[in-house]
Amino acid sequence: MININENYLKLKSSYLFAEIEKRVKAFKAENPDREIISLGIGDVTKALPEACIEAFRAAVEDMSRDKSFRGYGPNKGYSFLRDKIAEFDFKSRGADISADEIFVSDGAKCDTGNIQELFSLNSKVAVPDPVYPVYVDTNVMAGRTKTWEDGRYKGLIYLDSTEENNYVPDLPEESVDLIYLCFPNNPTGATIDKKSLKKWVNYAKENKALILYDAAYVAFIRDESLPKSIYEIEGSKNVAIEFRSFSKTAGFTGTRCAYTVIPKECMAYDKNGKKYSVHDLWERRQTTKFNGVSYPVQRAAEAVYTKDGQKQVNFLIDYYLENAIIIRKTFEGLGYKCNGGGNSPYIWIKTGEESWKFFDLLLKKANIICTPGSGFGRCGKGYIRISSFNSREKVEEAVERIKSALS
Amino acid sequence: MININENYLKLKSSYLFAEIEKRVKAFKAENPDREIISLGIGDVTKALPEACIEAFRAAVEDMSRDKSFRGYGPNKGYSFLRDKIAEFDFKSRGADISADEIFVSDGAKCDTGNIQELFSLNSKVAVPDPVYPVYVDTNVMAGRTKTWEDGRYKGLIYLDSTEENNYVPDLPEESVDLIYLCFPNNPTGATIDKKSLKKWVNYAKENKALILYDAAYVAFIRDESLPKSIYEIEGSKNVAIEFRSFSKTAGFTGTRCAYTVIPKECMAYDKNGKKYSVHDLWERRQTTKFNGVSYPVQRAAEAVYTKDGQKQVNFLIDYYLENAIIIRKTFEGLGYKCNGGGNSPYIWIKTGEESWKFFDLLLKKANIICTPGSGFGRCGKGYIRISSFNSREKVEEAVERIKSALS
Repeated sequence: MININENYLKLKSSYLFAEIEKRVKAFKAENPDREIISLGIGDVTKALPEACIEAFRAAVEDMSRDKSFRGYGPNKGYSFLRDKIAEFDFKSRGADISADEIFVSDGAKCDTGNIQELFSLNSKVAVPDPVYPVYVDTNVMAGRTKTWEDGRYKGLIYLDSTEENNYVPDLPEESVDLIYLCFPNNPTGATIDKKSLKKWVNYAKENKALILYDAAYVAFIRDESLPKSIYEIEGSKNVAIEFRSFSKTAGFTGTRCAYTVIPKECMAYDKNGKKYSVHDLWERRQTTKFNGVSYPVQRAAEAVYTKDGQKQVNFLIDYYLENAIIIRKTFEGLGYKCNGGGNSPYIWIKTGEESWKFFDLLLKKANIICTPGSGFGRCGKGYIRISSFNSREKVEEAVERIKSALS
Repeated sequence: MININENYLKLKSSYLFAEIEKRVKAFKAENPDREIISLGIGDVTKALPEACIEAFRAAVEDMSRDKSFRGYGPNKGYSFLRDKIAEFDFKSRGADISADEIFVSDGAKCDTGNIQELFSLNSKVAVPDPVYPVYVDTNVMAGRTKTWEDGRYKGLIYLDSTEENNYVPDLPEESVDLIYLCFPNNPTGATIDKKSLKKWVNYAKENKALILYDAAYVAFIRDESLPKSIYEIEGSKNVAIEFRSFSKTAGFTGTRCAYTVIPKECMAYDKNGKKYSVHDLWERRQTTKFNGVSYPVQRAAEAVYTKDGQKQVNFLIDYYLENAIIIRKTFEGLGYKCNGGGNSPYIWIKTGEESWKFFDLLLKKANIICTPGSGFGRCGKGYIRISSFNSREKVEEAVERIKSALS
């Protein structure tokens, strides 16, 4: 008899965004004439940068002729892309990362979800709270958690990210093995400074722990004093993996390209304390279970690093950041405490009431979709996340509606 | 201390094709002037069908304008693609599969590799021998195997596919839970008829087992009496998952699109025998760890089902099948026993000597790359696999070289 992986039965309800979809659908069915504006799911709305489109077009033409046609690509992705990533995203920031340490993939969600496979099921895993649900759910599926109590899984260590610590969690009191960090943070919009990040790197070194650093929203950092990569912190290459994505940087959510950096000196251990290269383990995993990213997509991603590409990407990011400022100012004007929006596309709003209740209020009174903070964890209770990914026109209309609904 | 998943240490050497690459590299270094022809890795060489290119181009243009831009797509893939798959690949064959039972993905390798996550670590897993290494390695990584003895992992059940049974394995004597089948087979080129496949479906029903049916090479079936889908067999929807790919059908190895079918009535069980929908488990897995296939790629795949697309795809397949006939006839003319090539892109050749020795001989004397059969399992010893994926010109040159080297 074929038995299921019973860890799946421990998963609490469906993915957060499925519940939102359900409520929106029900509202639409009752109010078919209302025009709803979504500031919920973090999905971009603006076209791909023109430089990416041009490269994309040319690569499709490559695929149309036997001579320039490409079949299976190199395991880690094409070097034309990895070379540019190493130069522009790391070396230019003083982070010594080589092209050979980069794995191109089809999404940061896949990579942050799959990475835990490389480690022992007995690993003590620390996750921020509030948290991007993928970090938690993938560990539940793997069997690293026990019962669900008080809105948390027994067996995980939660790192409270609250108003008190400015949404940058303190070091755990107990010793942990695997630490998920995400800056600029989804959902709180928080950023981390070099000094605080250095503390985490030191903790990981002292405890032989490993940091999984999710920097999917790094393009939104405008404060040049903030680290854009964990590899700007000395000593981090031994103890950190970094995840990046073109999704939010260049509007690739529907085009699919991301990458993960695992320095050659990043190590994990067997039971006897013998060292193993995490890079080699991930390469073995990826060559066995993955077959690379579409060639034309890799060409489109490469164009992000051209002069025009950089200009166009910055234009896009500025556009969303201006949306974020409009949204944040609106809520602050209405007396709500807000975080994020300055170096992040997300604004984290203290609602003063239960998240789903506030979600329903915004949906019904303003016809606006947000994301309830409680969906991201216990520390998200009484908050909502507002995303700045929409057109200026819609954002301006949204804030007018929010003002009338809430004042 | 971060501990590794020690199951990775059980993996025997690197992925087969990495070893081939190593030997070829060494040969090239010593013989820089020789022009090598690869009939090794199963990678296509002909350009994408023109219908796919046209759809690909148009979809890139969609991404260039805010109005037609697409961000995250639907979880299971766009219905424009899933509707066509259901109609053309299943309903037209009398297999009652609906669009809602299809999950679009970026590769059959990913799906056949990841699917085992849904099942208990105690599942008794049966794999063919010779076998596509992904089925085995992913179960090793998950911890379903013990020591490596005599060229096999203890803990797996191997289904011998030999000259005696015409490379279609017999039912296992013991009861197994999860069964990997692949037809047309990689590497042996064997096909299965309806009567034999029905036996497997009956076995699965009697044992509450699940069949993982890999039909990545189905486009090569020219004998209309053979089943193209396992769902042509009555009762299979309760006990089978089918994997398909555009890689070999339409030359998508570098473009990346595939799909997996899990009928709604396909069931697995918890320890108490309670039924669970495998479809729902996979949907939960995919929404958590995957973010869909590039929109322009899905549009390119959709074009496979247009009138022109079908004509062009058939032309491509015919081209490779003619290569296969040329290769098979050559080896048969030299006195070698061969299998496959008629309804499959692969020819499985009994070499009469050790596989790697024959590999080295072909490389050194004919400058031809093949794939050693022993790399696919114990039953592959004394065989090589030749792939027909190359240009006619190269294949014709290759067979001339093979003739001089071997006669």
